[in-house]
Amino acid sequence: MIVRHYEDAKPIIPQEPGMVGIKMRVVIGEEEGAPNFIMRHFSVEPGGQSPYHSHPWEHEVFVLKGEGKVIQGDKAFGISPGVVIYISPGEEHQFVNKGNEPMEFLCLIPRM
Amino acid sequence: MIVRHYEDAKPIIPQEPGMVGIKMRVVIGEEEGAPNFIMRHFSVEPGGQSPYHSHPWEHEVFVLKGEGKVIQGDKAFGISPGVVIYISPGEEHQFVNKGNEPMEFLCLIPRM
Repeated sequence: MIVRHYEDAKPIIPQEPGMVGIKMRVVIGEEEGAPNFIMRHFSVEPGGQSPYHSHPWEHEVFVLKGEGKVIQGDKAFGISPGVVIYISPGEEHQFVNKGNEPMEFLCLIPRM
Repeated sequence: MIVRHYEDAKPIIPQEPGMVGIKMRVVIGEEEGAPNFIMRHFSVEPGGQSPYHSHPWEHEVFVLKGEGKVIQGDKAFGISPGVVIYISPGEEHQFVNKGNEPMEFLCLIPRM
């Protein structure tokens, strides 16, 4: 069993094009022995965003802090703490921090 | 894409022996189309607890609210918001709310 605070996981600045103001921590991953799926913690600065993109794996997201939008095509859904988002494999999506504070969420993906 | 508040998922009172004061919501599960892993939200009343048990699948846990313990053998680890817990397949474990408020956490499992 591993018990630790998420802030004890090393922060990474993802280098993917279109990532703006994003810090990621792999809080339960391959190094911890996770056999099936990976828990990641994201912090998005005010005005920050992920790229508008899609990929052949799903996202399971839980919003922890802040206010923002998740965008798909011409739709934008408001997100705030307690909101859950399921993005199917192949669905386009983008996260944007529209607030004045960091927006934090968990985003889990299958182990690949 | 599905976007909803976790409280919009129907609460279930698990009937497993040893579950005391626990309410569970499957926030992203088979009904939502999750192909690989299931996100569940738990709320444990003060004094409530899960059974001391093990099973052949892992848990990935993120603590959202409250104060408590996760127990394994003669060890008890304090848990509070922001704490992450990885429990390997087969490891014994128990969650106990030691505080005066509901203890809330996400607990994800592989789809079986």
